[in-house]
Amino acid sequence: MTPEERVLSLGLQIPAASAPAGLYAPAVRSGSLLYVSGQLPMVNGQLLRTGHCGAGLSTEECAALARQCSLNALGAVRGELGSLDRVVRAVRVAGYVASAAGFVDHPLVINGASQVLIDVFGEAGRHARVALGVAELPRGAPVEVEYLFEVA
Amino acid sequence: MTPEERVLSLGLQIPAASAPAGLYAPAVRSGSLLYVSGQLPMVNGQLLRTGHCGAGLSTEECAALARQCSLNALGAVRGELGSLDRVVRAVRVAGYVASAAGFVDHPLVINGASQVLIDVFGEAGRHARVALGVAELPRGAPVEVEYLFEVA
Amino acid sequence: MTPEERVLSLGLQIPAASAPAGLYAPAVRSGSLLYVSGQLPMVNGQLLRTGHCGAGLSTEECAALARQCSLNALGAVRGELGSLDRVVRAVRVAGYVASAAGFVDHPLVINGASQVLIDVFGEAGRHARVALGVAELPRGAPVEVEYLFEVA
Repeated sequence: MTPEERVLSLGLQIPAASAPAGLYAPAVRSGSLLYVSGQLPMVNGQLLRTGHCGAGLSTEECAALARQCSLNALGAVRGELGSLDRVVRAVRVAGYVASAAGFVDHPLVINGASQVLIDVFGEAGRHARVALGVAELPRGAPVEVEYLFEVA
Repeated sequence: MTPEERVLSLGLQIPAASAPAGLYAPAVRSGSLLYVSGQLPMVNGQLLRTGHCGAGLSTEECAALARQCSLNALGAVRGELGSLDRVVRAVRVAGYVASAAGFVDHPLVINGASQVLIDVFGEAGRHARVALGVAELPRGAPVEVEYLFEVA
Repeated sequence: MTPEERVLSLGLQIPAASAPAGLYAPAVRSGSLLYVSGQLPMVNGQLLRTGHCGAGLSTEECAALARQCSLNALGAVRGELGSLDRVVRAVRVAGYVASAAGFVDHPLVINGASQVLIDVFGEAGRHARVALGVAELPRGAPVEVEYLFEVA
Protein backbone atom coordinates (compact mmCIF):
# COMPACT_ATOMS: atom_id res chain seq x y z
CA MET A 1 0.00 0.00 0.00
CA THR A 2 1.13 3.54 -0.64
CA PRO A 3 1.08 6.11 2.17
CA GLU A 4 -2.12 7.67 0.83
CA GLU A 5 -3.73 4.23 0.69
CA ARG A 6 -2.67 3.60 4.28
CA VAL A 7 -4.23 6.90 5.35
CA LEU A 8 -7.50 5.80 3.78
CA SER A 9 -7.27 2.29 5.19
CA LEU A 10 -6.59 3.58 8.71
CA GLY A 11 -9.27 6.26 8.45
CA LEU A 12 -6.84 9.00 9.50
CA GLN A 13 -8.26 12.52 9.48
CA ILE A 14 -5.61 14.74 7.92
CA PRO A 15 -6.54 18.41 7.90
CA ALA A 16 -5.60 20.96 5.26
CA ALA A 17 -2.39 22.84 6.06
CA SER A 18 -3.21 25.49 8.64
CA ALA A 19 -2.17 29.10 8.40
CA PRO A 20 1.13 29.77 10.19
CA ALA A 21 0.97 31.60 13.52
CA GLY A 22 3.60 34.08 12.35
CA LEU A 23 5.91 35.23 9.57
CA TYR A 24 6.84 31.81 8.30
CA ALA A 25 5.75 29.02 5.97
CA PRO A 26 4.06 25.74 6.92
CA ALA A 27 6.83 23.86 5.11
CA VAL A 28 9.90 24.67 3.02
CA ARG A 29 11.65 22.42 0.55
CA SER A 30 15.38 22.58 -0.13
CA GLY A 31 16.68 19.94 -2.52
CA SER A 32 15.29 16.60 -1.40
CA LEU A 33 14.58 17.79 2.14
CA LEU A 34 11.21 19.11 3.31
CA TYR A 35 11.28 21.06 6.58
CA VAL A 36 7.90 21.22 8.31
CA SER A 37 7.30 23.97 10.86
CA GLY A 38 6.53 23.18 14.47
CA GLN A 39 3.03 21.71 14.76
CA LEU A 40 0.67 22.22 17.68
CA PRO A 41 -2.22 19.93 18.65
CA MET A 42 -4.82 22.05 16.90
CA VAL A 43 -8.11 20.92 15.39
CA ASN A 44 -10.12 23.40 13.35
CA GLY A 45 -7.96 26.25 14.57
CA GLN A 46 -8.37 25.42 18.26
CA LEU A 47 -5.85 23.86 20.62
CA LEU A 48 -7.23 20.58 21.97
CA ARG A 49 -5.70 21.27 25.40
CA THR A 50 -3.43 23.70 27.16
CA GLY A 51 -1.15 23.13 30.11
CA HIS A 52 1.92 21.19 31.13
CA CYS A 53 2.41 17.43 30.89
CA GLY A 54 2.59 16.00 34.38
CA ALA A 55 0.32 18.67 35.84
CA GLY A 56 -3.25 17.59 35.21
CA LEU A 57 -2.35 16.04 31.86
CA SER A 58 -1.34 12.39 31.82
CA THR A 59 1.37 10.89 29.63
CA GLU A 60 -1.34 9.15 27.59
CA GLU A 61 -3.27 12.39 27.07
CA CYS A 62 -0.07 14.13 25.98
CA ALA A 63 0.77 11.30 23.57
CA ALA A 64 -2.66 11.74 21.98
CA LEU A 65 -1.87 15.44 21.53
CA ALA A 66 1.47 14.55 19.91
CA ARG A 67 -0.44 12.25 17.57
CA GLN A 68 -2.55 15.22 16.46
CA CYS A 69 0.65 17.18 15.77
CA SER A 70 1.68 14.48 13.29
CA LEU A 71 -1.70 14.50 11.57
CA ASN A 72 -1.34 18.25 11.16
CA ALA A 73 2.20 17.81 9.85
CA LEU A 74 0.93 15.40 7.21
CA GLY A 75 -1.53 18.11 6.19
CA ALA A 76 1.38 20.50 5.75
CA VAL A 77 3.26 17.90 3.70
CA ARG A 78 0.25 17.34 1.47
CA GLY A 79 -0.16 21.09 1.10
CA GLU A 80 3.43 21.37 -0.11
CA LEU A 81 3.77 18.19 -2.21
CA GLY A 82 0.18 17.42 -3.20
CA SER A 83 0.44 13.82 -2.02
CA LEU A 84 2.06 11.90 0.83
CA ASP A 85 3.19 9.38 -1.79
CA ARG A 86 6.00 11.75 -2.70
CA VAL A 87 7.61 11.26 0.73
CA VAL A 88 10.68 9.02 0.54
CA ARG A 89 11.16 8.78 4.27
CA ALA A 90 10.85 10.57 7.59
CA VAL A 91 14.29 11.83 8.60
CA ARG A 92 14.04 13.74 11.88
CA VAL A 93 11.43 14.52 14.50
CA ALA A 94 11.98 17.01 17.31
CA GLY A 95 9.41 16.76 20.08
CA TYR A 96 9.03 19.55 22.61
CA VAL A 97 6.94 18.80 25.68
CA ALA A 98 5.82 21.55 28.08
CA SER A 99 6.82 19.82 31.29
CA ALA A 100 5.82 20.23 34.90
CA ALA A 101 8.74 19.88 37.33
CA GLY A 102 9.75 16.24 37.46
CA PHE A 103 7.98 15.12 34.29
CA VAL A 104 10.53 13.04 32.36
CA ASP A 105 8.48 10.73 30.12
CA HIS A 106 8.99 12.81 27.00
CA PRO A 107 9.84 9.74 24.88
CA LEU A 108 6.46 8.16 25.67
CA VAL A 109 4.69 11.38 24.76
CA ILE A 110 6.51 11.81 21.46
CA ASN A 111 5.88 8.17 20.57
CA GLY A 112 2.34 9.38 19.88
CA ALA A 113 3.77 11.50 17.05
CA SER A 114 6.21 8.85 15.83
CA GLN A 115 3.57 6.12 15.62
CA VAL A 116 1.59 8.06 13.03
CA LEU A 117 4.64 8.28 10.77
CA ILE A 118 5.30 4.54 11.07
CA ASP A 119 1.62 3.78 10.47
CA VAL A 120 1.59 5.84 7.28
CA PHE A 121 5.06 5.28 5.85
CA GLY A 122 5.99 1.89 7.34
CA GLU A 123 9.67 1.47 8.15
CA ALA A 124 10.37 4.52 5.95
CA GLY A 125 8.55 6.46 8.66
CA ARG A 126 11.14 5.58 11.31
CA HIS A 127 13.23 8.67 12.02
CA ALA A 128 16.03 10.14 14.09
CA ARG A 129 14.50 11.91 17.07
CA VAL A 130 15.09 14.25 19.93
CA ALA A 131 12.54 14.69 22.73
CA LEU A 132 12.82 17.17 25.56
CA GLY A 133 10.91 19.08 28.19
CA VAL A 134 10.51 22.81 27.80
CA ALA A 135 9.17 25.59 29.98
CA GLU A 136 6.33 26.93 27.83
CA LEU A 137 4.99 26.45 24.31
CA PRO A 138 3.10 28.81 21.99
CA ARG A 139 -0.52 29.51 23.03
CA GLY A 140 0.01 27.31 26.09
CA ALA A 141 0.17 24.08 24.07
CA PRO A 142 1.38 21.01 25.98
CA VAL A 143 3.25 19.60 22.95
CA GLU A 144 4.92 20.91 19.79
CA VAL A 145 6.54 18.69 17.16
CA GLU A 146 8.83 19.60 14.26
CA TYR A 147 9.50 17.36 11.24
CA LEU A 148 12.00 16.75 8.46
CA PHE A 149 11.20 14.50 5.50
CA GLU A 150 13.12 13.33 2.46
CA VAL A 151 10.98 13.77 -0.63
CA ALA A 152 11.07 12.67 -4.26
CA MET B 1 17.18 44.58 -5.65
CA THR B 2 19.65 42.02 -4.39
CA PRO B 3 19.83 41.19 -0.69
CA GLU B 4 22.95 43.32 -0.25
CA GLU B 5 21.20 46.22 -1.98
CA ARG B 6 18.20 45.79 0.34
CA VAL B 7 20.51 45.88 3.36
CA LEU B 8 21.91 49.18 2.14
CA SER B 9 18.50 50.56 1.25
CA LEU B 10 17.06 49.68 4.65
CA GLY B 11 20.15 50.93 6.49
CA LEU B 12 20.55 47.67 8.39
CA GLN B 13 23.58 47.45 10.64
CA ILE B 14 25.07 44.00 10.11
CA PRO B 15 28.05 43.29 12.35
CA ALA B 16 31.07 41.17 11.48
CA ALA B 17 30.71 37.54 12.55
CA SER B 18 31.37 37.35 16.26
CA ALA B 19 33.68 34.84 17.88
CA PRO B 20 31.85 31.72 19.04
CA ALA B 21 31.24 31.33 22.78
CA GLY B 22 32.68 27.81 22.72
CA LEU B 23 34.29 25.04 20.69
CA TYR B 24 32.25 25.56 17.55
CA ALA B 25 32.06 27.56 14.33
CA PRO B 26 29.81 30.55 13.59
CA ALA B 27 28.50 28.69 10.52
CA VAL B 28 29.15 25.44 8.69
CA ARG B 29 28.34 24.62 5.10
CA SER B 30 27.45 21.15 3.90
CA GLY B 31 26.50 20.90 0.25
CA SER B 32 23.99 23.66 -0.48
CA LEU B 33 23.00 24.06 3.18
CA LEU B 34 24.52 26.62 5.53
CA TYR B 35 23.95 25.97 9.23
CA VAL B 36 24.32 29.09 11.38
CA SER B 37 25.00 28.64 15.09
CA GLY B 38 22.58 29.95 17.71
CA GLN B 39 22.69 33.74 17.81
CA LEU B 40 22.22 35.87 20.90
CA PRO B 41 21.11 39.53 20.97
CA MET B 42 24.65 40.84 21.29
CA VAL B 43 25.99 44.19 20.08
CA ASN B 44 29.72 44.80 20.24
CA GLY B 45 30.22 41.74 22.40
CA GLN B 46 27.58 42.72 24.98
CA LEU B 47 24.13 41.30 25.49
CA LEU B 48 21.51 44.01 24.99
CA ARG B 49 19.40 42.59 27.82
CA THR B 50 19.21 39.64 30.15
CA GLY B 51 16.19 38.04 31.75
CA HIS B 52 13.04 36.15 30.84
CA CYS B 53 10.33 37.28 28.45
CA GLY B 54 7.18 37.98 30.41
CA ALA B 55 9.09 39.02 33.54
CA GLY B 56 10.03 42.65 33.12
CA LEU B 57 10.58 42.25 29.39
CA SER B 58 7.62 42.87 27.09
CA THR B 59 6.82 40.91 23.96
CA GLU B 60 7.83 43.94 21.89
CA GLU B 61 11.17 44.27 23.67
CA CYS B 62 11.83 40.56 23.14
CA ALA B 63 10.92 40.84 19.45
CA ALA B 64 13.49 43.63 19.11
CA LEU B 65 16.08 41.32 20.68
CA ALA B 66 15.15 38.57 18.22
CA ARG B 67 15.63 41.08 15.42
CA GLN B 68 19.19 41.65 16.62
CA CYS B 69 19.79 37.88 16.53
CA SER B 70 18.95 37.91 12.82
CA LEU B 71 21.26 40.84 12.12
CA ASN B 72 24.03 38.89 13.85
CA ALA B 73 23.15 35.79 11.83
CA LEU B 74 23.48 37.76 8.62
CA GLY B 75 26.94 38.77 9.82
CA ALA B 76 27.80 35.09 10.23
CA VAL B 77 26.46 34.35 6.74
CA ARG B 78 28.53 37.14 5.23
CA GLY B 79 31.56 35.89 7.13
CA GLU B 80 31.12 32.46 5.60
CA LEU B 81 29.98 33.34 2.06
CA GLY B 82 31.38 36.83 1.54
CA SER B 83 28.01 38.20 0.43
CA LEU B 84 24.35 37.77 1.30
CA ASP B 85 23.68 37.62 -2.45
CA ARG B 86 24.84 34.01 -2.40
CA VAL B 87 21.85 33.02 -0.25
CA VAL B 88 19.21 31.17 -2.28
CA ARG B 89 16.64 31.10 0.49
CA ALA B 90 16.07 30.88 4.22
CA VAL B 91 15.05 27.31 5.05
CA ARG B 92 14.57 26.96 8.80
CA VAL B 93 14.55 29.19 11.87
CA ALA B 94 14.45 27.84 15.42
CA GLY B 95 13.61 30.47 18.02
CA TYR B 96 14.23 29.81 21.69
CA VAL B 97 12.67 32.24 24.14
CA ALA B 98 13.63 32.26 27.83
CA SER B 99 10.12 32.31 29.24
CA ALA B 100 8.65 33.30 32.55
CA ALA B 101 5.85 31.00 33.72
CA GLY B 102 2.80 31.63 31.58
CA PHE B 103 4.56 33.46 28.75
CA VAL B 104 3.25 31.91 25.54
CA ASP B 105 3.72 34.58 22.85
CA HIS B 106 6.86 33.01 21.41
CA PRO B 107 5.61 33.39 17.82
CA LEU B 108 5.29 37.16 18.23
CA VAL B 109 8.81 37.33 19.68
CA ILE B 110 10.36 35.28 16.91
CA ASN B 111 8.53 37.32 14.27
CA GLY B 112 11.17 39.94 15.10
CA ALA B 113 13.80 37.56 13.74
CA SER B 114 11.72 36.39 10.78
CA GLN B 115 10.89 39.90 9.62
CA VAL B 116 14.56 40.69 9.02
CA LEU B 117 14.91 37.68 6.72
CA ILE B 118 11.82 38.68 4.74
CA ASP B 119 13.03 42.28 4.55
CA VAL B 120 16.40 41.21 3.18
CA PHE B 121 15.53 38.20 1.00
CA GLY B 122 11.90 38.91 0.12
CA GLU B 123 9.70 35.83 -0.21
CA ALA B 124 12.91 33.74 -0.39
CA GLY B 125 13.38 34.78 3.23
CA ARG B 126 10.21 32.98 4.35
CA HIS B 127 11.19 29.83 6.25
CA ALA B 128 9.93 26.84 8.16
CA ARG B 129 10.01 27.69 11.85
CA VAL B 130 9.75 26.37 15.35
CA ALA B 131 9.37 28.70 18.35
CA LEU B 132 9.36 27.58 21.96
CA GLY B 133 9.89 28.71 25.52
CA VAL B 134 12.93 27.47 27.39
CA ALA B 135 14.11 27.68 30.98
CA GLU B 136 17.41 29.52 30.58
CA LEU B 137 19.67 30.66 27.74
CA PRO B 138 23.44 31.21 27.58
CA ARG B 139 24.68 34.27 29.54
CA GLY B 140 21.10 34.93 30.64
CA ALA B 141 19.94 36.00 27.18
CA PRO B 142 16.17 36.34 26.73
CA VAL B 143 16.26 35.02 23.14
CA GLU B 144 18.44 32.73 21.01
CA VAL B 145 17.80 32.02 17.33
CA GLU B 146 19.30 29.36 15.07
CA TYR B 147 19.23 29.48 11.23
CA LEU B 148 19.49 27.28 8.17
CA PHE B 149 19.96 28.74 4.69
CA GLU B 150 20.20 27.28 1.22
CA VAL B 151 23.16 28.81 -0.59
CA ALA B 152 24.50 28.92 -4.13
CA MET C 1 45.68 9.79 11.49
CA THR C 2 42.17 8.74 10.56
CA PRO C 3 39.30 9.22 13.03
CA GLU C 4 39.37 5.52 13.96
CA GLU C 5 43.12 5.75 14.55
CA ARG C 6 42.58 8.79 16.76
CA VAL C 7 39.97 6.91 18.78
CA LEU C 8 42.53 4.15 19.38
CA SER C 9 45.31 6.59 20.12
CA LEU C 10 43.20 8.50 22.63
CA GLY C 11 41.84 5.33 24.20
CA LEU C 12 38.26 6.48 23.80
CA GLN C 13 35.61 3.99 24.88
CA ILE C 14 32.90 4.07 22.22
CA PRO C 15 29.94 1.84 23.03
CA ALA C 16 27.82 -0.05 20.55
CA ALA C 17 24.74 1.89 19.44
CA SER C 18 22.16 1.63 22.18
CA ALA C 19 18.53 0.73 21.61
CA PRO C 20 16.33 3.78 21.15
CA ALA C 21 14.06 4.78 24.04
CA GLY C 22 11.05 4.93 21.72
CA LEU C 23 9.69 4.52 18.22
CA TYR C 24 12.69 5.92 16.39
CA ALA C 25 16.08 5.00 14.97
CA PRO C 26 19.51 5.73 16.50
CA ALA C 27 20.50 7.48 13.27
CA VAL C 28 19.02 8.12 9.83
CA ARG C 29 20.88 8.93 6.64
CA SER C 30 19.46 11.13 3.91
CA GLY C 31 21.82 11.83 1.02
CA SER C 32 25.14 12.89 2.50
CA LEU C 33 23.63 13.87 5.86
CA LEU C 34 23.50 11.58 8.88
CA TYR C 35 21.06 12.64 11.60
CA VAL C 36 21.85 11.15 15.01
CA SER C 37 19.09 10.99 17.60
CA GLY C 38 19.37 12.83 20.92
CA GLN C 39 21.98 11.12 23.10
CA LEU C 40 21.83 10.87 26.89
CA PRO C 41 24.81 10.34 29.21
CA MET C 42 24.21 6.59 29.50
CA VAL C 43 26.79 3.89 30.15
CA ASN C 44 25.71 0.26 29.88
CA GLY C 45 22.07 1.26 29.79
CA GLN C 46 22.24 3.41 32.95
CA LEU C 47 22.23 7.18 33.23
CA LEU C 48 25.46 8.36 34.89
CA ARG C 49 23.57 11.07 36.77
CA THR C 50 20.17 12.65 37.01
CA GLY C 51 19.23 16.18 38.00
CA HIS C 52 19.62 19.75 36.85
CA CYS C 53 22.86 21.55 36.11
CA GLY C 54 23.42 24.26 38.69
CA ALA C 55 21.56 22.32 41.42
CA GLY C 56 24.02 19.90 42.94
CA LEU C 57 25.74 19.31 39.61
CA SER C 58 28.67 21.54 38.70
CA THR C 59 29.44 22.86 35.25
CA GLU C 60 32.44 20.52 35.08
CA GLU C 61 30.34 17.50 36.03
CA CYS C 62 27.77 18.42 33.39
CA ALA C 63 30.50 18.86 30.76
CA ALA C 64 31.70 15.34 31.55
CA LEU C 65 28.17 14.09 30.99
CA ALA C 66 28.02 15.92 27.66
CA ARG C 67 31.28 14.22 26.72
CA GLN C 68 29.62 10.84 27.31
CA CYS C 69 26.77 11.89 25.00
CA SER C 70 29.31 12.38 22.19
CA LEU C 71 30.93 9.00 22.82
CA ASN C 72 27.47 7.44 22.56
CA ALA C 73 26.79 9.40 19.38
CA LEU C 74 29.98 8.03 17.84
CA GLY C 75 28.66 4.57 18.67
CA ALA C 76 25.47 5.38 16.77
CA VAL C 77 27.52 6.66 13.82
CA ARG C 78 29.62 3.49 13.77
CA GLY C 79 26.45 1.42 13.99
CA GLU C 80 25.09 3.15 10.91
CA LEU C 81 28.24 3.56 8.80
CA GLY C 82 30.49 0.78 10.06
CA SER C 83 33.41 3.16 10.60
CA LEU C 84 33.98 6.72 11.78
CA ASP C 85 36.34 7.11 8.84
CA ARG C 86 33.30 7.59 6.61
CA VAL C 87 32.47 10.88 8.38
CA VAL C 88 33.36 13.89 6.24
CA ARG C 89 32.66 16.45 8.93
CA ALA C 90 30.51 17.33 11.91
CA VAL C 91 27.85 19.82 10.77
CA ARG C 92 25.56 20.68 13.69
CA VAL C 93 25.34 19.97 17.40
CA ALA C 94 22.32 20.89 19.51
CA GLY C 95 22.97 20.73 23.24
CA TYR C 96 20.09 20.71 25.70
CA VAL C 97 20.95 21.27 29.35
CA ALA C 98 18.41 20.65 32.12
CA SER C 99 18.95 23.90 33.98
CA ALA C 100 18.26 25.05 37.49
CA ALA C 101 16.98 28.63 37.69
CA GLY C 102 19.85 30.98 36.93
CA PHE C 103 22.17 28.41 35.36
CA VAL C 104 23.47 30.01 32.15
CA ASP C 105 26.78 28.26 31.41
CA HIS C 106 25.33 25.99 28.75
CA PRO C 107 28.19 26.69 26.33
CA LEU C 108 30.75 25.41 28.84
CA VAL C 109 28.68 22.27 29.40
CA ILE C 110 28.27 21.54 25.70
CA ASN C 111 31.99 22.13 25.11
CA GLY C 112 32.36 18.70 26.71
CA ALA C 113 30.46 17.24 23.77
CA SER C 114 32.16 19.41 21.15
CA GLN C 115 35.68 18.57 22.35
CA VAL C 116 35.19 14.87 21.57
CA LEU C 117 34.29 15.68 17.97
CA ILE C 118 37.35 17.89 17.56
CA ASP C 119 39.57 15.25 19.21
CA VAL C 120 38.34 12.57 16.82
CA PHE C 121 37.81 14.48 13.56
CA GLY C 122 40.23 17.40 13.96
CA GLU C 123 39.06 20.65 12.41
CA ALA C 124 36.47 18.63 10.46
CA GLY C 125 34.87 18.03 13.84
CA ARG C 126 34.14 21.73 14.37
CA HIS C 127 30.42 22.32 13.91
CA ALA C 128 27.63 24.85 14.02
CA ARG C 129 26.01 24.69 17.44
CA VAL C 130 23.11 25.73 19.56
CA ALA C 131 23.12 25.32 23.36
CA LEU C 132 20.21 26.06 25.62
CA GLY C 133 18.70 25.38 29.01
CA VAL C 134 15.54 23.29 29.20
CA ALA C 135 13.12 22.40 31.97
CA GLU C 136 13.41 18.60 32.02
CA LEU C 137 15.05 15.88 29.95
CA PRO C 138 14.09 12.22 29.38
CA ARG C 139 14.62 9.96 32.41
CA GLY C 140 15.81 12.98 34.39
CA ALA C 141 19.06 13.32 32.44
CA PRO C 142 21.01 16.55 33.03
CA VAL C 143 22.16 16.76 29.39
CA GLU C 144 20.98 15.61 25.96
CA VAL C 145 22.88 16.22 22.73
CA GLU C 146 21.77 15.83 19.11
CA TYR C 147 24.14 15.57 16.12
CA LEU C 148 24.30 16.04 12.37
CA PHE C 149 27.22 14.75 10.31
CA GLU C 150 28.15 14.90 6.66
CA VAL C 151 29.19 11.44 5.48
CA ALA C 152 30.86 9.92 2.41
